Amino acid sequence: MTSAYQLYFSPGACSRVSIAALEWVGADYALHPILLAQNEQRQPAYLALNPKQQVPLLVTAQGALSETLAIAQYLHQNYPQAALLPAGSPYDTALATSWLAWCSATLHPLIFRVRRADRIHSEAAQHDVIRQVALADLSHQLELVERTLSDGRQWLCAAGCSLADLFVLWCVQRAVQGGCEIDQWPALSEWQARAQAHSAWTRMLQREAQAVAAREAGVLL
Amino acid sequence: MTSAYQLYFSPGACSRVSIAALEWVGADYALHPILLAQNEQRQPAYLALNPKQQVPLLVTAQGALSETLAIAQYLHQNYPQAALLPAGSPYDTALATSWLAWCSATLHPLIFRVRRADRIHSEAAQHDVIRQVALADLSHQLELVERTLSDGRQWLCAAGCSLADLFVLWCVQRAVQGGCEIDQWPALSEWQARAQAHSAWTRMLQREAQAVAAREAGVLL
Repeated sequence: MTSAYQLYFSPGACSRVSIAALEWVGADYALHPILLAQNEQRQPAYLALNPKQQVPLLVTAQGALSETLAIAQYLHQNYPQAALLPAGSPYDTALATSWLAWCSATLHPLIFRVRRADRIHSEAAQHDVIRQVALADLSHQLELVERTLSDGRQWLCAAGCSLADLFVLWCVQRAVQGGCEIDQWPALSEWQARAQAHSAWTRMLQREAQAVAAREAGVLL
Repeated sequence: MTSAYQLYFSPGACSRVSIAALEWVGADYALHPILLAQNEQRQPAYLALNPKQQVPLLVTAQGALSETLAIAQYLHQNYPQAALLPAGSPYDTALATSWLAWCSATLHPLIFRVRRADRIHSEAAQHDVIRQVALADLSHQLELVERTLSDGRQWLCAAGCSLADLFVLWCVQRAVQGGCEIDQWPALSEWQARAQAHSAWTRMLQREAQAVAAREAGVLL
């Protein structure tokens, strides 16, 4: 392992935001797939690294770091020139952190209820109600994106594009996959197209696909 | 409004962590009760400030800030001498942020499922199953606190006491109120007693009680 950082991820999961952050700052890192769909987060070797049974996990020279927000803050502090978060004032930085925290604390748990109702209630007959209640809440929350963008700004933070846009993008994509409708929001749709074209996002998709293909071919990247 | 900061809170809610942070750094602030139990977060005047319908909300000279993590980061940056988070290295700070993010993204949503099953599923007959599933997950997650403390450390971050201890404390207290058992964890119990005795925590309880009493007496603090 000669890379400076090791990132444990699952394809398509919220670890995409951490991969995009590593691409954004230009860090030297290696990717390690932990397939949630195959319950690999419960393998003893991974549990020893991250007892939370979650991705992402960033292993640094100082130790391991879980949670997207902690990884974002760590990279922001270590690569101040990369402008991963706005740094004009503590308020500007905190505003971007507020968007990231909203993704982690509100949107992601709602997405979990939509996609993994089986982890909320043991009876399959109850899952559809749980999904519908969560979808309604998710739609109500996502309206905040449209409202924020309706003043004509290009990115969620007036200070400019930041990792907040990419974490909200991941949440929007997952919400749509789960059945959330967003066509009624024109500003959100235009912003989504801009965010999806961000070079850190497109490079993330390439790196993630390469790492999955390499694993399938039995090669460690 | 002559105080530097205005904090909107609900008694007992996770806004306690932000009040404790304001006490910790010695900020000049006023408290404004928004009683979630009376759905006051949906009043138009508050919705105009915070369309997320949540507390806490910190209003600063630059603008409003929601999300505990954003408020914590903002105060940490504006009061660097207060050591709200460890600042020895970016990794130390990020490790404390990782604990805070775990509270917001994992523990708090589980506590919500335990306490507000009515917001997860419309039928009361299903609420107990939802609560029990969430309680089992919560207990499994909280074991991480015991495991972390079992090396003899006094606080969650080896670098020392931080706001992370107080946010985890709030989660532990709420989990216990919801029926989570923690008596099997001796290190957690000793840590809980230490954290509850922290002066920022005890002063927070006083300020919160004063603000509630003042509101009941019809006085604005």
